[in-house]
Amino acid sequence: MDAVRDLVPRLLAGEPRALARAISIVEDRRPAAREIMKAIAASAGRAALLGVTGPPGAGKSTLVDGLAALLRSEKKKVGIIAVDPSSAFSGGAVLGDRIRMQRHSTDPGVFIRSMATRGNFGGLAAASVDVADLMSAAGCDVVLIETVGVGQDEVEVVRVADLVMVVLVPGLGDDIQTIKAGIMEIPDIFVLNKADREGIERLHSDVQSMLSLAEHPGGRTPAIVRTVGTTGEGLPELLAAVEAAPGAAGEPAQARRRERSRERLLDLLKERVMEWVSVAPARQEVDRLAGELAQRSIDPHAAADVLMARLTGGARG
Amino acid sequence: MDAVRDLVPRLLAGEPRALARAISIVEDRRPAAREIMKAIAASAGRAALLGVTGPPGAGKSTLVDGLAALLRSEKKKVGIIAVDPSSAFSGGAVLGDRIRMQRHSTDPGVFIRSMATRGNFGGLAAASVDVADLMSAAGCDVVLIETVGVGQDEVEVVRVADLVMVVLVPGLGDDIQTIKAGIMEIPDIFVLNKADREGIERLHSDVQSMLSLAEHPGGRTPAIVRTVGTTGEGLPELLAAVEAAPGAAGEPAQARRRERSRERLLDLLKERVMEWVSVAPARQEVDRLAGELAQRSIDPHAAADVLMARLTGGARG
Repeated sequence: MDAVRDLVPRLLAGEPRALARAISIVEDRRPAAREIMKAIAASAGRAALLGVTGPPGAGKSTLVDGLAALLRSEKKKVGIIAVDPSSAFSGGAVLGDRIRMQRHSTDPGVFIRSMATRGNFGGLAAASVDVADLMSAAGCDVVLIETVGVGQDEVEVVRVADLVMVVLVPGLGDDIQTIKAGIMEIPDIFVLNKADREGIERLHSDVQSMLSLAEHPGGRTPAIVRTVGTTGEGLPELLAAVEAAPGAAGEPAQARRRERSRERLLDLLKERVMEWVSVAPARQEVDRLAGELAQRSIDPHAAADVLMARLTGGARG
Repeated sequence: MDAVRDLVPRLLAGEPRALARAISIVEDRRPAAREIMKAIAASAGRAALLGVTGPPGAGKSTLVDGLAALLRSEKKKVGIIAVDPSSAFSGGAVLGDRIRMQRHSTDPGVFIRSMATRGNFGGLAAASVDVADLMSAAGCDVVLIETVGVGQDEVEVVRVADLVMVVLVPGLGDDIQTIKAGIMEIPDIFVLNKADREGIERLHSDVQSMLSLAEHPGGRTPAIVRTVGTTGEGLPELLAAVEAAPGAAGEPAQARRRERSRERLLDLLKERVMEWVSVAPARQEVDRLAGELAQRSIDPHAAADVLMARLTGGARG
């Protein structure tokens, strides 16, 4: 308690070590986490939350680093959250993140955090938006959330962002069609990275023709920006597109914030339910039902109904 | 009710149209779904459930098609579930699946179904394992579940499988290191596809050296099999590796089945909770809390606690 009381003012003053410590507490869902989140609530939410997603190999990390450097040149404080669900099994930060952290380690205006999934509680999106709130409270003007892949988990993470960029590159293989079809309706901005490569014109016209077929909420069409992450080419144009995007301010931004809040609330509710099943007596009930299910002496939906009745009847019912 | 009473015997007799109809009902979570799942429970679970995952562009679909053809030559009935979370936004089946369905359309021994995410209820893994149960009840000996990508959603889907194959290919770019690090602990079999391509030796030794560093549950080491999906090269060896895998039978298979049942139960519980929040009066409560959260007049964890108290106090509390 005392530790937390000491930690929050230092966090609000922008002290990197206090921020790092608060993030660890919140990420691990330790008891003090809720107290911290409550204490910083009024100061959270001022940073713009920018989501960056796309398939493996699209050069997202290099792009995010370049955007961070550009924002730093405008004297803005930047937070980077590298969400990496694929490391859920190995558990640790990946090599690439450690290299990145070294690169920015001399700049107190850039704070980088890498996150994997939160195990059984499942709240990757919930935890990452909490971390974004902490960064915001510590004075970050912009928080970039970067996710690997295009699965549902990524979708959930980007759903909590103010604005979403999808990064594509020329020549990623046959499945790129599938990916593009899938993500067409999310992004505010399509970033065509590695634009110095062969196939860039084809990719650009593919994205354009697909956009011409799709419906866009509120009549807005996503911007398309070409970049070369490794040289920084196109990054000023990308940042201009971010600032000009309809989701960045006004009524669309407010509508998105309400939707984001709803998603966040439901994520946290799921997390609470998974906490409930992880302790007695629900834990024993789950083990018993799972055993019966494995033997096929109960059908899965009947088993789920038993558990749901227990949950809604009160945890000790 | 009468329709369902008529449907189940036809499904159990292996009639493709009855199976297709039952899948639609179960996938859409219509009221009759639970009745159908209960009626087929005793006949479900006999098929081997094989998960196939890996990054976009790895050639998973071609590989799965080849395995299906090989299993058909052994007179086995095959179900294929193509899980495609990336099409959650576009909603429909992708072009590739339609082409595949045409290829197998003259063979009543192959049943293909493509699935995207289930929207707010979220139960992609829950729904796909229900579909696998339906295919099993309809007489399928093997059900192949294929997922795009390496996100958490894929992980959840493969967690419900009896055995997991991860497909990798040479030269997928820098992020491949990340992918490999992330998935190293899941698979029973590494499939090195497009093995006629440059870089295959490097990929093979990369996978081997990483496996030598990793811990393997129960001391078992994943098999590595090279394939060329387009020519069918290596597929008989792959099928032999599937049959020889420790997860295929005995105590490891039983332990896995218990773990699978637990995952399935928790997936269904989350689905029930998301159903609860989608109807009155919880729905209004969620809207109210999300509004306060957007205004920052309540902190997110306090809002989640209010909702959880409502849930555990009974749906009408």
